[in-house]
Amino acid sequence: MNEIFRASADVLTAKTRTALLDVGATPETAEATTQALLYASNIGVDSHGVRLVTHYAAMLRAGRVKTNPILKVRRTAPATAMLDADNGLGHHASYQAMKLAIEMAGQAGIGAVGVMHSSHCGAVGAYALKAAEAGMVGIVTSNSDANVTLFNGSRTFHGTNPLAMAAPVSNQMPWLLDMATSSIPFNRVRLYRSLGLPLPSDVAADAEGNITQDAMRAAMLLPLGGESYGFKGAGLAGMVTILSTVLTGAVIDPLLVQMTETSDFTTPRNVGHFCIALDPARFIGREAFDGVLKNYLALLRAVPSTVPGESVMAPGDREWKIAEERKRTGIPVDPDTQAFLQL
Amino acid sequence: MNEIFRASADVLTAKTRTALLDVGATPETAEATTQALLYASNIGVDSHGVRLVTHYAAMLRAGRVKTNPILKVRRTAPATAMLDADNGLGHHASYQAMKLAIEMAGQAGIGAVGVMHSSHCGAVGAYALKAAEAGMVGIVTSNSDANVTLFNGSRTFHGTNPLAMAAPVSNQMPWLLDMATSSIPFNRVRLYRSLGLPLPSDVAADAEGNITQDAMRAAMLLPLGGESYGFKGAGLAGMVTILSTVLTGAVIDPLLVQMTETSDFTTPRNVGHFCIALDPARFIGREAFDGVLKNYLALLRAVPSTVPGESVMAPGDREWKIAEERKRTGIPVDPDTQAFLQL
Repeated sequence: MNEIFRASADVLTAKTRTALLDVGATPETAEATTQALLYASNIGVDSHGVRLVTHYAAMLRAGRVKTNPILKVRRTAPATAMLDADNGLGHHASYQAMKLAIEMAGQAGIGAVGVMHSSHCGAVGAYALKAAEAGMVGIVTSNSDANVTLFNGSRTFHGTNPLAMAAPVSNQMPWLLDMATSSIPFNRVRLYRSLGLPLPSDVAADAEGNITQDAMRAAMLLPLGGESYGFKGAGLAGMVTILSTVLTGAVIDPLLVQMTETSDFTTPRNVGHFCIALDPARFIGREAFDGVLKNYLALLRAVPSTVPGESVMAPGDREWKIAEERKRTGIPVDPDTQAFLQL
Repeated sequence: MNEIFRASADVLTAKTRTALLDVGATPETAEATTQALLYASNIGVDSHGVRLVTHYAAMLRAGRVKTNPILKVRRTAPATAMLDADNGLGHHASYQAMKLAIEMAGQAGIGAVGVMHSSHCGAVGAYALKAAEAGMVGIVTSNSDANVTLFNGSRTFHGTNPLAMAAPVSNQMPWLLDMATSSIPFNRVRLYRSLGLPLPSDVAADAEGNITQDAMRAAMLLPLGGESYGFKGAGLAGMVTILSTVLTGAVIDPLLVQMTETSDFTTPRNVGHFCIALDPARFIGREAFDGVLKNYLALLRAVPSTVPGESVMAPGDREWKIAEERKRTGIPVDPDTQAFLQL
């Protein structure tokens, strides 16, 4: 078996940016997309890391995504705005939306920006993290194309509709939750297919909605909570839908052109995102916020794990640990992406 | 077996209000608490319905909860405020917090109110629903006493920390999600104990954190997602914690005096809640919002169920159906509550 190829974040940043510029992306688009992909690659979320640059470049070439979108911001009230992403890549729009939410939260205590006419934006945690870096609590959602069924559903309906939240922790890396509202992503099904292994129980269903562990027969994911409690995961996917698409006027999941499983690479998809920033200074105050959060995290991490030799972790702990490792070892790159980026 | 006793909502409203006034609650407190309990009883959430009046009356008598709290509102910015509940019952404070969030959202597009020095507030959906009734999207969270463990945790840490969201649907009852971030409530464990039945798989653990289906040995709940994906449920419980207690300065779950499993009924608990209201008019606009949401719900309800004769439901569908039934049949009341309310 071959050694896994690894590259430094600096090299991947330069190569990813160049690849996007080469297909005509504006500098702003190339910069934002590269930053979001490296965010995911750095923390070990490889499904949303640099490997996506190949897909994005193809979409920019094919015309589904505009190379030179003109973002339009419409301020609607002191704490709210809509951002029309003009069918560009979702990363630049999402960073801009969160930036505006943070600015408004600085004035109004909280700010919310809906994004429409967008496309895939990678890992939504990237944008929530921006709020934490600005000393605020950030919440970000995005809808996505349908591959998750409903509770007792027999067809795909919601996407894996992610929900992210980040909070600043004084003198520590931020608390960072970034989760799909299904138990696993569909890429995991593809992985099990290629490995010839059975799926975990209670995560996927066949084309009729019957729960299956046969990766070859799996046609849809179950919402988080599975057969018995999937109404909760489906409800969370609905919550993400209402924020990301109903409030923004974007296209709802079951009507969304598929990201990859389609031959249509020219129709803009009109994905929606939603960004909220909250300023702790406008609630209990930053100092008290810092104190409660540090105490909470210290108590959480002190709970003994049921797994010998392991620790209980807060959201983000695993990711920041991987980021430290990858600073030393580099970021693993799959052969297709290695070839595409000419590494 | 005896017939289950049932009472009309009107009778229960009058009796519940009187029971609270009789132990010295102010009219505002009695009214708000009654409204919140009847909300839950009407929609079939009996665990959070009128049966709680016995507990609340005991707490008002014992001194843990003040009979005549003076709510203090501190506006901190155009879209944010803190509400100090002065250790009264949580329902009045939560209704007032959501009312203020709705008012601020009317001006600023979004409004958020943190509540501290509160106590149990019943079903948080009651307050999210107020936003929907005002034409807004509402999000409400509350922390609660620790009976849920962490992912691979060996001790209780979070409460069942509920998350509710409601959205107005034109000419229909609101979309309404109100969920704990564990798979089941601890009351379910007590029910299985009394029935002598094994628990469902993957929902509870023994005193060392080992997963068990033995209801007698179950000492804590697993977060939503269970043994394999409980990091998601634990992350959601953390999200609720950051909103409800870290932003508000309330007491975090593992330090909270237990609601019932304690001999301390005099120390105020300092529970925290968080209310957000968003005005659809300040995003894509109310008309477009209505159109997308109706289309989304129609498509969702048209997905065939895997259970013959059943329909796929949106959050709230089951609850509004039960509310219709109970208008006709009355609300079931357990013998203890029947005796307490002198029904």
